[in-house]
Amino acid sequence: MPGAPRPTGDTHGHDRAADACAPPVSARTVAEQLAAVLAECHVLAPTQVSLDDVRGLVLAEDIHSATATPPFDNSAMDGYAVRRADVLLASPTNPITLPVIADLAAGTAENPFIEPGRTARIMTGAPLPDGADAIVPIEGTDQGTEWVTITVAPKEHAHIRRAGEDAHAGDTVLHAGSVLWPTRIAAAASAGTSVVLAHPAPRVAVISTGSELVTPGDSTRRGQIPDSNSFLLAAAVAEAGGIPIRVGAVPDDERTLRELLSSLAETVDAIVLSGGVSVGAYDVVKAVLAPLGTVRFGPVKMQPGKPQGFGRWPMPADSANGSAPDPAGELNDDPSATPGRPARPGPVIFALPGNPVSAYVSFEVFVRPALRRMLGRTDLHRPTITATVDRGWRSPPGRAQYMPVIIDRDGERTLVRPAAAGGSGSHLVAGLGQATGLAIVSESSTQISDGDLVTVMLTS
Amino acid sequence: MPGAPRPTGDTHGHDRAADACAPPVSARTVAEQLAAVLAECHVLAPTQVSLDDVRGLVLAEDIHSATATPPFDNSAMDGYAVRRADVLLASPTNPITLPVIADLAAGTAENPFIEPGRTARIMTGAPLPDGADAIVPIEGTDQGTEWVTITVAPKEHAHIRRAGEDAHAGDTVLHAGSVLWPTRIAAAASAGTSVVLAHPAPRVAVISTGSELVTPGDSTRRGQIPDSNSFLLAAAVAEAGGIPIRVGAVPDDERTLRELLSSLAETVDAIVLSGGVSVGAYDVVKAVLAPLGTVRFGPVKMQPGKPQGFGRWPMPADSANGSAPDPAGELNDDPSATPGRPARPGPVIFALPGNPVSAYVSFEVFVRPALRRMLGRTDLHRPTITATVDRGWRSPPGRAQYMPVIIDRDGERTLVRPAAAGGSGSHLVAGLGQATGLAIVSESSTQISDGDLVTVMLTS
Repeated sequence: MPGAPRPTGDTHGHDRAADACAPPVSARTVAEQLAAVLAECHVLAPTQVSLDDVRGLVLAEDIHSATATPPFDNSAMDGYAVRRADVLLASPTNPITLPVIADLAAGTAENPFIEPGRTARIMTGAPLPDGADAIVPIEGTDQGTEWVTITVAPKEHAHIRRAGEDAHAGDTVLHAGSVLWPTRIAAAASAGTSVVLAHPAPRVAVISTGSELVTPGDSTRRGQIPDSNSFLLAAAVAEAGGIPIRVGAVPDDERTLRELLSSLAETVDAIVLSGGVSVGAYDVVKAVLAPLGTVRFGPVKMQPGKPQGFGRWPMPADSANGSAPDPAGELNDDPSATPGRPARPGPVIFALPGNPVSAYVSFEVFVRPALRRMLGRTDLHRPTITATVDRGWRSPPGRAQYMPVIIDRDGERTLVRPAAAGGSGSHLVAGLGQATGLAIVSESSTQISDGDLVTVMLTS
Repeated sequence: MPGAPRPTGDTHGHDRAADACAPPVSARTVAEQLAAVLAECHVLAPTQVSLDDVRGLVLAEDIHSATATPPFDNSAMDGYAVRRADVLLASPTNPITLPVIADLAAGTAENPFIEPGRTARIMTGAPLPDGADAIVPIEGTDQGTEWVTITVAPKEHAHIRRAGEDAHAGDTVLHAGSVLWPTRIAAAASAGTSVVLAHPAPRVAVISTGSELVTPGDSTRRGQIPDSNSFLLAAAVAEAGGIPIRVGAVPDDERTLRELLSSLAETVDAIVLSGGVSVGAYDVVKAVLAPLGTVRFGPVKMQPGKPQGFGRWPMPADSANGSAPDPAGELNDDPSATPGRPARPGPVIFALPGNPVSAYVSFEVFVRPALRRMLGRTDLHRPTITATVDRGWRSPPGRAQYMPVIIDRDGERTLVRPAAAGGSGSHLVAGLGQATGLAIVSESSTQISDGDLVTVMLTS
């Protein structure tokens, strides 16, 4: 966009100037970029996952009850298993005493036949013995162990939980596509399943690039700053349901980065890079990825986050487990992997700007929905609310703006104000950490005034 | 409650009858039980935690910026560091050409003095060399490397990011009590911190009791059913932010349970048991814990979940690291632990009913707020909404009811209906897994009718 005013949001930190020399790449709107990302990010091929590790995953098969639930008639109370006819006239004034022929605890396999005039003590959950047709709770008895005196007549089938009352053998208790939250994990266990077919969580490598970056806590000399983006983005991956592999910071060296990406490609589903996406002499991410032809770099009409790239690491044909070789220069448009299909495409790559606010906004807008798609979730997006602007700000023309905001309640109204005093700049320390939402401003708006209504993505 | 009608919700599964013989224990309301639980559950003593592991934890110290942020004046653009006076008249019609004396990449420690009439190429983030007072972006140049021709005059201090612009050395960038979400983890990293003092996640052992329980997937004989509660409650612990240690199912054997609890007590902060809390002949949890005097068993005026226990495992004096011995029979009322106080009280113990719905409701109402208190969170409770009843149900008198419900939207209205066709019974497989909320019915209500408004706790 030659001649366009440069908004301050992209000019701090690592975001770099638009390339004055490279062949022009058409700018995409946020919607266009998101559509391109989601078209490329498929739900991961399901695998067998232990119930101990499935929380938050999406089920890839129907779960059927292995047996009826409960599997046998059992007592719903602590009491005595009786033939109802024997105690039909029992009352406090007409106590009936019976011999106790067995003591049935939960878990017992015993099945003593209850002859007329006999009873067995029985605990909650224990199988109902043959012959018995009702339970007298202990409160209606003297709790005897050799002989018991019963003073209450049970109703027909009283306190018997019938086999199959909850589910019959073979009933579908959970459907494919269900998100496995605690009560559903319990339902699978209850159905007799210990391992289920589920879409795994994506493994996501997170790499910061920049020779100025050092590990936080290490001493810095002139020119150096702590890497914060790899911590930011790894935590955001985990929050989205992915498994972060935080590689940390790598210097602006093409060979180092190329070898790192190549070694990671075998074991991860996605790679999130930050920094090095623009046109500086040492913009290593663009330098390594752009020539591959499988990662597109181009401006997105948003602020912050304008310069970024997205695509896929090309796997050599011999490592793709027999799949068709991935023609160079073509985005892998592989449909969703299925269990019977061993081919493994390379990981998708998100090349985000280096500015922390730009990286964070880009993650929320593009990476998080992509990871949730890979998880098999259908709720890809953060919830949004409409809020009233409490302190206005400016927005650049022709770009959708994502302003980190603090959300407050004022009686019935929900108010928002920029989290950083200076606007949507790179004031990570001062403001981004306090933001609980991103106000979304359309491309056509340039001034957001007090009292305006805005859409706000809730981020925490 | 002799003579009171027995609601069906507690009569299925493992919930057992009220004790007809034990000395009477006064029933508590839900509010009374919750207050007793929260009075006993203190925020865990803070420990040093790596930034890689702090997501969701609560910061226990203020974080100060180790240096100014940024620590040095640096370039906000890829361009050329100049003395502004040298290029004040530069324009397309009056290009000014200067020798390039250095090439300053991000991360460089170089500081070549820029004499009048000289310039240095500089990348975003690289330190501003002494002598220079403005940056000319590459777009305003011919991008030369030996000599550069400049056609745009920079404004005063153009594109220079000043040391301390975001924070001064020693500034507080995060306050104690902050929940460490991704942008705050980044703020800590940015401040030069790799390890922070935070309240750790509680380690929570989860144990199902019952001789009828087998591991899901193992074959069952007459009398046996799969353990589902340990999966349910372990996943719920993780969802609440705790670290579950899922022990699984143990039989109704007092010695086994006592030894297990004793061995776990050294390493966990809380123990969640299910089953064995009532008065059956084999109610092992009550048999082991009630005599200790530190765990109170008594009815809670709620449905489901009436019979349960709460307290603390008493640590032998010699394992309490020098703390005062815990007098038998007295609940440990130790104030919140502090870093300088090595004494370690025994874990808190939640003895929940064995019925899965009862166990789940009790977890949501008591255990989850307790775990969040231990985490140091101030938002202890699930959010609630008001919804319209779409299909009414009954509620027992004198007890608060928690009905698992399915929440639907109907235009402006939010509708709820019981998740299990049979009401709030034990129909885990059929209904609980589909519930997304718990409708809360007051003690005084006995009939919830279509069109009534109810408060609903949002659980997923």
